[in-house]
Amino acid sequence: MDESAPRRVRATFLWLVGASQVLGLAAVIITGVWMGHYRGGFAWDGSGLEFNLHPLCMVLGLIFLHGDAILVYRVFQNEPKRNVKLLHGVIHLLALIISIIGFVAVFDFHRAAKIPDMYSLHSWCGMATLVLYCLQWVIGLLFFLFPVASSWLRASYLPIHVFSGLVLLILAIGNSLLGITEKLLFSIMPTYSMLAPEGVLANVLGILLVCFGVLLGYLVTREEYRRPPNPEEEALSVHFKTLTEGGSPNTP
Amino acid sequence: MDESAPRRVRATFLWLVGASQVLGLAAVIITGVWMGHYRGGFAWDGSGLEFNLHPLCMVLGLIFLHGDAILVYRVFQNEPKRNVKLLHGVIHLLALIISIIGFVAVFDFHRAAKIPDMYSLHSWCGMATLVLYCLQWVIGLLFFLFPVASSWLRASYLPIHVFSGLVLLILAIGNSLLGITEKLLFSIMPTYSMLAPEGVLANVLGILLVCFGVLLGYLVTREEYRRPPNPEEEALSVHFKTLTEGGSPNTP
Repeated sequence: MDESAPRRVRATFLWLVGASQVLGLAAVIITGVWMGHYRGGFAWDGSGLEFNLHPLCMVLGLIFLHGDAILVYRVFQNEPKRNVKLLHGVIHLLALIISIIGFVAVFDFHRAAKIPDMYSLHSWCGMATLVLYCLQWVIGLLFFLFPVASSWLRASYLPIHVFSGLVLLILAIGNSLLGITEKLLFSIMPTYSMLAPEGVLANVLGILLVCFGVLLGYLVTREEYRRPPNPEEEALSVHFKTLTEGGSPNTP
Repeated sequence: MDESAPRRVRATFLWLVGASQVLGLAAVIITGVWMGHYRGGFAWDGSGLEFNLHPLCMVLGLIFLHGDAILVYRVFQNEPKRNVKLLHGVIHLLALIISIIGFVAVFDFHRAAKIPDMYSLHSWCGMATLVLYCLQWVIGLLFFLFPVASSWLRASYLPIHVFSGLVLLILAIGNSLLGITEKLLFSIMPTYSMLAPEGVLANVLGILLVCFGVLLGYLVTREEYRRPPNPEEEALSVHFKTLTEGGSPNTP
């Protein structure tokens, strides 16, 4: 094989990561513009302005930061795994806190406006996604950062953790599209079909979120972008064998 | 390793495939019940009854059959690859025809009712999904059933084909959830928030479609459920080397 091939693969990977960041940030900014310019801005007073924090927090937390937390393993390939794992957990925690603020904002708005909760498909899917995301974070913390589970259990759970993380990101994106559709039909139903600028902007936001998801999915499933295995690190890693269990770092 | 392990893995796989079929069929039936019982049934006359064919065709074609077409490689592990490939192509063709009928139904209904086309996020994502699905089918046909592309090109395209197929299934499911939300807000907005039976049924349909997608995604990405490689078959396969190119079946 051509010796420059791995360098080319890495360069393509980094360009695609850059593109994913542009897409993700554009989605966050467009959500801010939509809520700030077309929907009157933000406040924490139970009004529609408090609702406006909901889409912004969800796109920033449950989509952009969630996606980036997944991506760190492949971006920081030469950093020690333990550091990357900590970064992964911290970004997810930040995403979780921001998402919970977004949830509180919408429930608070509903209570003040006497709008019923939890009747729509968007609310059902959203609640399921947030609850499962919390669960995923707590189990991840116990299994991979604290040596609570046996090494066999950790090794068995790892592929499920990875699969679930991607599923939750896809669910978050799908659900944001439901939220966009709901918001547009509640707010501008008469002009949406006439391609009102607000409707077009929100549609573009939806398309950007889909593109962010597809690119993230590609980057984290493509075999050639995988973090190269480091046998010494694996032996020391809490994934498979910890020194507390008496396993020698040299044991395969 | 325990010798019965592969048999256990296969048994679990088959149970999960069974569960996916129950979920998929339940989704098709519930769509039929929703449109048949709550929305007045089906017809081909430009009325709302023609629109009712749209959700049914999309769930049956672009989701259920699309999902099953992807699954055949892992279900029929002992059949010759060429037969499985033909089955894969034929089920996708059926899915494509049914989906196109579903698209014609909604455009026909819009024309008769003078409703504008292509303004909603659902319509944008839906059109993109169908166009890309057609493209994926045609390229798949040319690359893998007819020896048009070089073996290098086919081998390079295969992972993209597999990734795109799963992305298109996810897009179809996400877009069906957008369609459910649109239909409910257009039809029963005043009673949806009071948990009207039609709204609950449609929400359940959405949840079933998500579960079908998650299970399908798990079945087709899990390494241990992969079709075991058959070197002789691979040498003969149009994937990598065809006899027309002069490659010997015994050449690796």
